[in-house]
Amino acid sequence: VSGDLIEALRKALGAEAVLDAREDVARFEQDGRQAGGRALAVVRPQDAEGVAATLRLAAQAGVTVTPQGARTGLVAAGLPDDAGGMLVLSLERMNRAPAIDPVNRTAEVEAGVLLSQLNAAAAEHGLHFPIDLGADPSVGGMVAANTGGARFLRFGDVRRNVLGLEVVAADGAGPMRLGGALWKNNAGLDLKQLFIGASGATGVVTGATLALQPLPASSVTALAALSDPMAALDLLTVLEARFGALLTAFEGMSRNALGHAFGHVARLQNPFADIPPYAVLIELSSGPVLSTEALEEALGEALAGLMEQDGSPVLDVAADRGQRLWAIRHAVPEGLRAAGQVIACDIAVRRGDVMRLRAEAAADVANRWPELEVCDFGHIGDGGLHFNMVWPKAAGPAPAGLAEAVRGHVFARTVEDFDGSFSAEHGVGPRNIESYRRHTPPTVRRLAGSMQALLAPVALGRVDFG
Amino acid sequence: VSGDLIEALRKALGAEAVLDAREDVARFEQDGRQAGGRALAVVRPQDAEGVAATLRLAAQAGVTVTPQGARTGLVAAGLPDDAGGMLVLSLERMNRAPAIDPVNRTAEVEAGVLLSQLNAAAAEHGLHFPIDLGADPSVGGMVAANTGGARFLRFGDVRRNVLGLEVVAADGAGPMRLGGALWKNNAGLDLKQLFIGASGATGVVTGATLALQPLPASSVTALAALSDPMAALDLLTVLEARFGALLTAFEGMSRNALGHAFGHVARLQNPFADIPPYAVLIELSSGPVLSTEALEEALGEALAGLMEQDGSPVLDVAADRGQRLWAIRHAVPEGLRAAGQVIACDIAVRRGDVMRLRAEAAADVANRWPELEVCDFGHIGDGGLHFNMVWPKAAGPAPAGLAEAVRGHVFARTVEDFDGSFSAEHGVGPRNIESYRRHTPPTVRRLAGSMQALLAPVALGRVDFG
Repeated sequence: VSGDLIEALRKALGAEAVLDAREDVARFEQDGRQAGGRALAVVRPQDAEGVAATLRLAAQAGVTVTPQGARTGLVAAGLPDDAGGMLVLSLERMNRAPAIDPVNRTAEVEAGVLLSQLNAAAAEHGLHFPIDLGADPSVGGMVAANTGGARFLRFGDVRRNVLGLEVVAADGAGPMRLGGALWKNNAGLDLKQLFIGASGATGVVTGATLALQPLPASSVTALAALSDPMAALDLLTVLEARFGALLTAFEGMSRNALGHAFGHVARLQNPFADIPPYAVLIELSSGPVLSTEALEEALGEALAGLMEQDGSPVLDVAADRGQRLWAIRHAVPEGLRAAGQVIACDIAVRRGDVMRLRAEAAADVANRWPELEVCDFGHIGDGGLHFNMVWPKAAGPAPAGLAEAVRGHVFARTVEDFDGSFSAEHGVGPRNIESYRRHTPPTVRRLAGSMQALLAPVALGRVDFG
Repeated sequence: VSGDLIEALRKALGAEAVLDAREDVARFEQDGRQAGGRALAVVRPQDAEGVAATLRLAAQAGVTVTPQGARTGLVAAGLPDDAGGMLVLSLERMNRAPAIDPVNRTAEVEAGVLLSQLNAAAAEHGLHFPIDLGADPSVGGMVAANTGGARFLRFGDVRRNVLGLEVVAADGAGPMRLGGALWKNNAGLDLKQLFIGASGATGVVTGATLALQPLPASSVTALAALSDPMAALDLLTVLEARFGALLTAFEGMSRNALGHAFGHVARLQNPFADIPPYAVLIELSSGPVLSTEALEEALGEALAGLMEQDGSPVLDVAADRGQRLWAIRHAVPEGLRAAGQVIACDIAVRRGDVMRLRAEAAADVANRWPELEVCDFGHIGDGGLHFNMVWPKAAGPAPAGLAEAVRGHVFARTVEDFDGSFSAEHGVGPRNIESYRRHTPPTVRRLAGSMQALLAPVALGRVDFG
């Protein structure tokens, strides 16, 4: 059967669109974090019609398809399983130059276009797509994962910045256009929402119309060293009230996260004499109405005012106009990997609870797994926390099943005690499906499963939401 | 049957929750714009369990229920039909004081709470719900209609500001919680989206957790008189690039709209010597980092720079720190009603097309219906346009069917020639269901109908999306 399918795909899409030699297929079997699986073959259509043909032929052959972007995801949603029977549908050749509409502030983009390509095209018009990520994902992958990122506080997730989608159904029907290039459209059920953050399991996103924002003309960052992590929330409230929409990032880093970044990433410089108990990276950005100097002065004044108060938790402040402080924040994952085996939990709670959650969960982890070092960091301005832990190299190999047990425990505390989320921004994939089953109410799962069955009458992708 | 149902509802919810005397029911049969229908009875539960009981009993009796908010909607989605057999489910008694979480910047609100009540509670913490409307709707109604408003440009619609919903299904199942109080939650299909902008036809929204924003500390407005409406788009692009997120409104008004506002609303003052061919209301807002004086100076400088250019389309500028210029914008509907019979089209296109659409549609209308005066205005910063027309009092009574013919024609041009929307922000209700059927592709309608059938196994509300 699979030989016939591959033959049929070659005939429909051209030989160059279908890869089945082991050496050609290997690169489609791994993403940034996962061990990966094994693909039957890889199909790389050049347009939505090719996607539709692929899905039709696979459905006829009874072969399950996994849509795949740039393999930068962290939950394995775009990878084939280990059984070797899944067809990978790579969107990477759907990457024609984005069409930028500068007056509408939108980009019409094919699914395989990379975020960096989109932003390069937008920058020619003084615009950008404001989802700020360390990786360079494809647009289709960003939609399927509903990525968040470091400027969520100001711009939200992908969902809040998608105006329209082009989607092919799992059985090959379509392409169907949902939405369009309109900022404002209130003419019925907003069906495109069911393809955003759906891990590619409700249909294949082949294109998107995305909302763009003016590139900031001025921008400053400050790193505030805090004596007490709990003080971060007061700082957030004060800065938001003062700066409103000019506050574009508010990122937290624990002492352990800072320690490993400075300890293992040689290019970094610690701006402080010591490693503080906690640090917050603050970014202000503006259009040309405020110069960099003006922003610098305003932020410096606000932070100096806080430092001068009696018993102020603000120990010290470092300021920067460039990427020096961001480099520290971005180096944390690298520092943690250098220190040992990382166990990662991408969680979210109410903003007011985020520091209490980290304290309670850290005490809990220390109690149960004393060898683990909690090295949390993350987007605390929006209640998101990368509650990551390191099993230090010195402790030898981690026990089998440790990561699952620890993650299960942290997720349960987050959801059950804090009404929080076990997936703040990474989405659901094979990596999180057990947590999804455990922490999603049965009535919601039933409804989600029925939706998925309706949208994808043929099984698609790696996630069963039912 | 209906007598038994009313008896059963009284028994389940208490006598005071059920109204069936003609004089008690009348006020639930009309909204802001519609002639309205006739209700079998009105049920006013005080909690979600009461809503569930109402829906269960009505389903058993085979009676269709229409959920209703504060009756400020413009598409009749919350009104009973003329047959007299529908039960109105008013959420007005579900209006306990909102619970504001100032650190999370969220409000937990029951469906019957009014926007004004929500904002009064939020203001005690320096916050507001940034959906700015002329009317005072209920929160449940705002969710069901997915309202937009005058600050859409900066904050988007209700959809972009809802974090979680509590929903009761049409058959009385639930209440079900979707989402929660999290800014960031990417843990599965986002099912709450199917209840937003759904006109109450997919389930009854009984509560919501809403994202709040800091109240601006400073704010200025300017009214720019333009010699050429087309110049509004350049002005928009220039101001966005300069002010970024500080630009919180950009509203357009045609000469005819201005003329009727000044001509019929005595309290207004025209700040210009004449009535200009077009005018744009610009608002900048900021946190305390920028004073009102600083905003005023920055906006004045930007507009003066534009006026000084050779052949500048900016004829004159009036500035204000208060509500004087907003009062002109808000008085336009009143001015139009005073001038004659209003035919209203709430449309949206790409921002770059909005001035061309108005010019072409106006020429078209003048050609076909020379008596009609086009008096358009609206949220042109987000591509929305209230393309409203007046049949002048002097022309006598309007011909029968005129409004339907004119609206049908304008909608067709908008959708077919401009890929636009026949409902930018008012939603779909009996008032524009024919346009929905005409302008929604059959595949999308089929999918929407299947969704609705899945969510509401018993018919609910006034709209069939299939």
